[in-house]
Amino acid sequence: MRIVVAVGGNALERSEERGTYEEQTRNVRVACAELVQLLAKGHQLLITHGNGPQVGNLALQQEKARADLPTQPLHVLGAMTQGQIGYMIQQTLQNLAGHARINKSIISIVTQVLVDRSDPAFRNPTKPIGPFYDFEASERLKAERGYMMTKVKPEGVRVYRRVVPSPEPIRIIEAEAIKRLFDEGGVVVASGGGGIPVAMNGEGELEGVDAVVDKDLAAEKLAEAVGAEGLLILTDVEGVKLNFGTTKERSVRQLTVDEARRFLEAGEFLAGSMKPKVQACVSFTVWGGRAAVITSLGKAVESMEGRAGTTFIKA
Amino acid sequence: MRIVVAVGGNALERSEERGTYEEQTRNVRVACAELVQLLAKGHQLLITHGNGPQVGNLALQQEKARADLPTQPLHVLGAMTQGQIGYMIQQTLQNLAGHARINKSIISIVTQVLVDRSDPAFRNPTKPIGPFYDFEASERLKAERGYMMTKVKPEGVRVYRRVVPSPEPIRIIEAEAIKRLFDEGGVVVASGGGGIPVAMNGEGELEGVDAVVDKDLAAEKLAEAVGAEGLLILTDVEGVKLNFGTTKERSVRQLTVDEARRFLEAGEFLAGSMKPKVQACVSFTVWGGRAAVITSLGKAVESMEGRAGTTFIKA
Repeated sequence: MRIVVAVGGNALERSEERGTYEEQTRNVRVACAELVQLLAKGHQLLITHGNGPQVGNLALQQEKARADLPTQPLHVLGAMTQGQIGYMIQQTLQNLAGHARINKSIISIVTQVLVDRSDPAFRNPTKPIGPFYDFEASERLKAERGYMMTKVKPEGVRVYRRVVPSPEPIRIIEAEAIKRLFDEGGVVVASGGGGIPVAMNGEGELEGVDAVVDKDLAAEKLAEAVGAEGLLILTDVEGVKLNFGTTKERSVRQLTVDEARRFLEAGEFLAGSMKPKVQACVSFTVWGGRAAVITSLGKAVESMEGRAGTTFIKA
Repeated sequence: MRIVVAVGGNALERSEERGTYEEQTRNVRVACAELVQLLAKGHQLLITHGNGPQVGNLALQQEKARADLPTQPLHVLGAMTQGQIGYMIQQTLQNLAGHARINKSIISIVTQVLVDRSDPAFRNPTKPIGPFYDFEASERLKAERGYMMTKVKPEGVRVYRRVVPSPEPIRIIEAEAIKRLFDEGGVVVASGGGGIPVAMNGEGELEGVDAVVDKDLAAEKLAEAVGAEGLLILTDVEGVKLNFGTTKERSVRQLTVDEARRFLEAGEFLAGSMKPKVQACVSFTVWGGRAAVITSLGKAVESMEGRAGTTFIKA
């Protein structure tokens, strides 16, 4: 099956870790070992990944050096993480595929994603990114750089964080080349971190915008663009749970599009977390995708065979 | 003509600049305007670029934040700059090609370059990278991280700098996919900063090494791998000069391989600067390339028509 796989950014840098190269390499290796199993089963893979921890680290490093060097905008940091994570995934997959005698071209593509400046998300930024600040620093950033800041912790000294818009992905700019490489049998890493968000300006030119596109929604757009049959979302829980965090919590193995839509409308799923994953699976199924699956890293192979995770069906 | 174009890292961030996004965007636009002229003449382009200033900035930012966050190894910083610069070139070229009604797929590929750990360069690191340090910090880095440090300024307080090996490029790991996209008419940005240097370890796996491959030598390898007809090296001088910096300085419009080799042996060209460019052009011409040209940004089109720059010929 031709599958778009979305790997969570936290699978690459765990919350309890500091983000050393050794830690990230180890985590990438765990994820890639599983992807190689999918390749060994004969699936074709187009891989996308989150970049939250990595872009946060870069943002902090840029801040710490701002007396010496100018900081780069968020969309440029996103591009940097595509290079960084793309490199790590690509090299590790090449190594593990080599051991498994799977001979495939494996490459990462710098990917932009088109968003619309009139998207309501630009009037209501919701995605927190980068370092935590105290009140004074927060006010300074608002004044100096026009950042939107929000209070994100109930207590503590450094409780403010920058928030940026999370607009809908409209189109993957490099879709054509990605599709071509994928069609020719290559393993492609693309649209990392949801893609570098760009918008069309008054001169008909693309330009970067400081925003974060949800990586699962971008993965779904990519899956449509390349005509994939599967969309596999790997996260840190085994699948969709209803009544999450209550005594009535239960896992679901299968959801119809109608059921999923009702749960979405009822506010069943956490925004920025399970909600966009379910939305992505609904969209992909409605579009005509054969298998949309949410599962945990470690259950990918079983889940593609319907033995774990949550699978979405038309009716 | 199918041309590999190498753009110098200093063309993207000038020495008198701070490296803001606005400055870099402006510089990239100047370079891309020229590349679009080559496209308009019907040439097919595979673009590579330097990353010296950008990787230096990242290294300094990582150092400044090292109390809070782990620093990433040099090869990872190289991967980050491939994302960063690839993104900027790709977006600007897409925009300018659009204005010129040139409809081509334009993409950047994360690229590794194979080097050999037994390359003599590993015993004699020569390439200075990253921030300047005082004696004490230099000694600390030698002890804590095993860095090789060298005194790079005759005077001043901060005179020490890290030096890394600059081994020969053996092979572009992603050459096959790059060739395919190039063959299909795409404009490809690849092997930025000379490529991410990787070596084969005892388990037959690729792993990153802290080294810097000369971008012009890597460009030549890439040109061979994709079967290019032209190698165009854009730098900040108009071409090769003999007796450089003396009263007998003169420009040369054409050099035979034999002449160039004699000048190389006589130590005519500066190591890490004009020398690898001349070496790359000699190798490419010997390999069977039709046109190897060294010229300045701003003279690319004229130089490809033999009206500027220095062109290399077999005999």
